[in-house]
Amino acid sequence: MRDFKTIRWEGDVDGQCVIIDQTKLPEDFIEINLNTAKDAWQAIKVLAVRGAPAIGVAAAYGMLLGVRKLKEISSFIAELNKTKDYLDSSRPTAVNLSWATTEMLKIGEAVAQTTQDVDLCHKTLLEKAREIQSDDERRCVAIGQHGADLVPENGLCLTHCNAGALATAGAGTALSVFYAAQEQGKSFKVYADETRPLLQGGRLTAWELNKSGIDVTVICDSMAGFLMSQKKLDLIVVGSDRIAANGDIANKIGTYSVAVLAKEHNVPFYVAAPFSTFDMSLENGSQIPIEERMREEISTSNGKITVGKEVNVWNPAFDVTPAVYIEGIITEEGILRKNGHEDFVVSIKKLSEKLKNDT
Amino acid sequence: MRDFKTIRWEGDVDGQCVIIDQTKLPEDFIEINLNTAKDAWQAIKVLAVRGAPAIGVAAAYGMLLGVRKLKEISSFIAELNKTKDYLDSSRPTAVNLSWATTEMLKIGEAVAQTTQDVDLCHKTLLEKAREIQSDDERRCVAIGQHGADLVPENGLCLTHCNAGALATAGAGTALSVFYAAQEQGKSFKVYADETRPLLQGGRLTAWELNKSGIDVTVICDSMAGFLMSQKKLDLIVVGSDRIAANGDIANKIGTYSVAVLAKEHNVPFYVAAPFSTFDMSLENGSQIPIEERMREEISTSNGKITVGKEVNVWNPAFDVTPAVYIEGIITEEGILRKNGHEDFVVSIKKLSEKLKNDT
Repeated sequence: MRDFKTIRWEGDVDGQCVIIDQTKLPEDFIEINLNTAKDAWQAIKVLAVRGAPAIGVAAAYGMLLGVRKLKEISSFIAELNKTKDYLDSSRPTAVNLSWATTEMLKIGEAVAQTTQDVDLCHKTLLEKAREIQSDDERRCVAIGQHGADLVPENGLCLTHCNAGALATAGAGTALSVFYAAQEQGKSFKVYADETRPLLQGGRLTAWELNKSGIDVTVICDSMAGFLMSQKKLDLIVVGSDRIAANGDIANKIGTYSVAVLAKEHNVPFYVAAPFSTFDMSLENGSQIPIEERMREEISTSNGKITVGKEVNVWNPAFDVTPAVYIEGIITEEGILRKNGHEDFVVSIKKLSEKLKNDT
Repeated sequence: MRDFKTIRWEGDVDGQCVIIDQTKLPEDFIEINLNTAKDAWQAIKVLAVRGAPAIGVAAAYGMLLGVRKLKEISSFIAELNKTKDYLDSSRPTAVNLSWATTEMLKIGEAVAQTTQDVDLCHKTLLEKAREIQSDDERRCVAIGQHGADLVPENGLCLTHCNAGALATAGAGTALSVFYAAQEQGKSFKVYADETRPLLQGGRLTAWELNKSGIDVTVICDSMAGFLMSQKKLDLIVVGSDRIAANGDIANKIGTYSVAVLAKEHNVPFYVAAPFSTFDMSLENGSQIPIEERMREEISTSNGKITVGKEVNVWNPAFDVTPAVYIEGIITEEGILRKNGHEDFVVSIKKLSEKLKNDT
């Protein structure tokens, strides 16, 4: 069973945020303490904590860390704003980061208008950060529970990249499905694509599943096809960075290849993601912008040149998998399906309206 | 144009074998001289020279290097046999290696029975080694000429691993198609899969195409699918290590995934290989044994641990691509096609019988 926590808060307002230093995995399991906003900024910057939800939680605690030494209410709001700008600069493109710091700023401003007690303000910030964390934990658990039935007893599963506990404050998204199946007492085996170029599958997914007692085998991304031709896989689950209104999904580069291979071998291909991943402003996946990253991620290997500097390199960080390849999308509210259509337009719209009415 | 030679002999019997040290590519282009059988053994062992045809040629020259200091005919055959056993031990599973040393031994034994002139024996060995090399060069050229028409003007092509000049004594197999198209004056672009785990695509294919003035871009293996979904590729060509009588082919791991992706995107998928690659004793690809290699190729990256030692790793070196995915097989005798069938049984049999009758 999973016995580690990617991020947690220890103690009261004067306590500390404790994270696993993911830059040291899989060789060393080292936890580090964040005691200042600078500690949090640094941890996010160097990817000691990574994954959109986990970054959001780290930044939320970072907001408290930035102001908790204040003894007077007078500079509280100014300092909180400064801390937000500072933390937001650690990874400017991470949407969850600025979302979390904005939530923290809103609650801080609200409480500071009703009290002169700076300690109360600090306590309120800690409560809010804990709430952001526990909301994420709950979403992860719900995703896992909805998806666990897809894992058959003695099943063979595959995942790509790391949509795991290490990327969230809870049990992860795609990997939460495996943790929930394990809690149901099922025995099964997971193959993890190593996920070039940054090897999040080999380094992180393999580490966390193995540490939690789940049988995991790492393969190179290029082996997934041969694996499917040799063994009947029962389930593929991946995470997602963004989902369009028709169910086209963006995820780590290589996901689309896995989806095509899954179709060829009749393996059900699922995506696990909280509803916050849906971008209802995008009609389909072609509108999702794809970040291209620096060549060195591919052209060097731990300092050694593996592609000559005169040679071109193409390094898209994500790809788009059209809805037609996706069997279902596992959300905290249940599994969305296509109802015989080519896309998820109807089921996504229905869920979107339900969630709107709930709030 | 290609201006390097993977392997060559300089001078007469007392000359030397010069090879490109492929362990130094792509960072450094260094040629090394092989002056003794031990030099040849070492070069093959450490992969300074690699690729079945190139290894065969290096071993052929190595046979001469092992006996050329002999002044007396008396010990010639014994020394030649010893040299063969020694060289064969450098890479025991390389079929071309023992094929080439056997050819050299046969000619050496034959000439030694007709003369007492040890210098004549040495000269005969050099001639035979040069013949093995030039046969390989001719086969490569013929493959390229048969395949070049498949490359359209301004075409976009893809290859996997290194079936290039660096793997042969000539222009390569798959890459020979590109060199021949270049000689026809065509402009085109090649994408090279980096080819995990050993990166022959990024390190070697990219190096040799770039050095020869062909526009080449390296991608991670997992990006091939997204590439095909974004750009219309015109041609995929790969090499092969073994081809069954029905046209199922074994090649570097990852080839099968590329073939499935090619089918999904309607990109013609070709295999380029000399007829010596066909194993007529195998009815289909399921009978091809697949070597599994050591976990460290995947679990470490230039000395750094990237997969924890408690985690399983699966590392098949090759995979099998069924004939149904293959548009044609480019051989030195022409392109084999399926004639509307699911496999190549008829065309392979016809070629096999033609070659039998020719000899």
